[in-house]
Amino acid sequence: MFSGAQISLYPMTDDFVGVIMSALGALDPYRDRLRIETDDISTLVVGPPEVLFPAMRDLFVAAARTGKHCVLSAAISRGCPGEPDDEICRSVQLSGPRAPLDERKAAALAAVADAPDMAVPIAAQFSLYVMGTGDHMDEIYGCIDFIKRSGVFDRSKNFCTKLGGDAGKVFASLEAAFCRFGPPAGHVTIDLTVSANSPTPR
Amino acid sequence: MFSGAQISLYPMTDDFVGVIMSALGALDPYRDRLRIETDDISTLVVGPPEVLFPAMRDLFVAAARTGKHCVLSAAISRGCPGEPDDEICRSVQLSGPRAPLDERKAAALAAVADAPDMAVPIAAQFSLYVMGTGDHMDEIYGCIDFIKRSGVFDRSKNFCTKLGGDAGKVFASLEAAFCRFGPPAGHVTIDLTVSANSPTPR
Repeated sequence: MFSGAQISLYPMTDDFVGVIMSALGALDPYRDRLRIETDDISTLVVGPPEVLFPAMRDLFVAAARTGKHCVLSAAISRGCPGEPDDEICRSVQLSGPRAPLDERKAAALAAVADAPDMAVPIAAQFSLYVMGTGDHMDEIYGCIDFIKRSGVFDRSKNFCTKLGGDAGKVFASLEAAFCRFGPPAGHVTIDLTVSANSPTPR
Repeated sequence: MFSGAQISLYPMTDDFVGVIMSALGALDPYRDRLRIETDDISTLVVGPPEVLFPAMRDLFVAAARTGKHCVLSAAISRGCPGEPDDEICRSVQLSGPRAPLDERKAAALAAVADAPDMAVPIAAQFSLYVMGTGDHMDEIYGCIDFIKRSGVFDRSKNFCTKLGGDAGKVFASLEAAFCRFGPPAGHVTIDLTVSANSPTPR
């Protein structure tokens, strides 16, 4: 299994470099469990979902706390057949057989209930893609049902689902969506946008 | 068939609202062939790929010509089983049976050769997702082979492919990747990031 994300952070300010550089410190507690490589368009973060999602959360929260309008965009992936296995990606979240859909929904809701309170309200939207199976829409509809009961559901949009709430619960919901729907060893991706401090009314 | 995108434009400047508002004028020539709805996180653009990709290109080029570091992020989708058919999406690109992979690669290369020169150099990266078929990686590898010969290939990255070159050829390559790989009536999506004027060395 190979899992990780291409992540970009966009602070809408002349001092975008300063905001990004200061937020990067939030990744320090996770660095020994992730492989991180940056170029001019995104930062590759390779590691298991239970490290990746809290790391993305803390990175974004650090940027959002500047008060500037900030967006994090990520292409998150697991199980891509074109990627080699990597020991750093070994995950407790993705081991074992796939439980029935209802059990996975209940486990996802429990994980969101346990999420820490970051005291940073955010908006998010995401698309979940499940590849290589004929039943991909069943898994997606199962995930949507979980999200609607998660407490952070905002509304369904074309092509994606919009969330809103505290950063702790939003990122916990995204982690559960990513890990608990689609086959454990399957190719699953999320196209994610997270936003804070937007001047546009909702 | 339903097709379109959720698009966001991120100018990394204190005047991000001004850059976005001025760039929106670039969509005017396309408005009668698209349905456009904006909220606090993205703009929904519904319409056929042959209108959508030039509209995204002109929107991004208008923002990039300000000289500010700008990013466009988009979740582009066609054929999602959860979306209703919409007459505005009727496409000459997605009609007819699927030709053999080699013929589609050749047609994609011809389309890129015909792309207009926008005189705006950009970087981009994208992931192509083909859902609901067992052969999704064959289609993706076919698309990657086309992209490597397109003249705008930069390099393969984990989870995505990076492009670089004039905005005309880059967006023509993305349109060909989206339309010519995966079944014509299938569920195909692209997770796209386009960047201009980044201060980070490549």
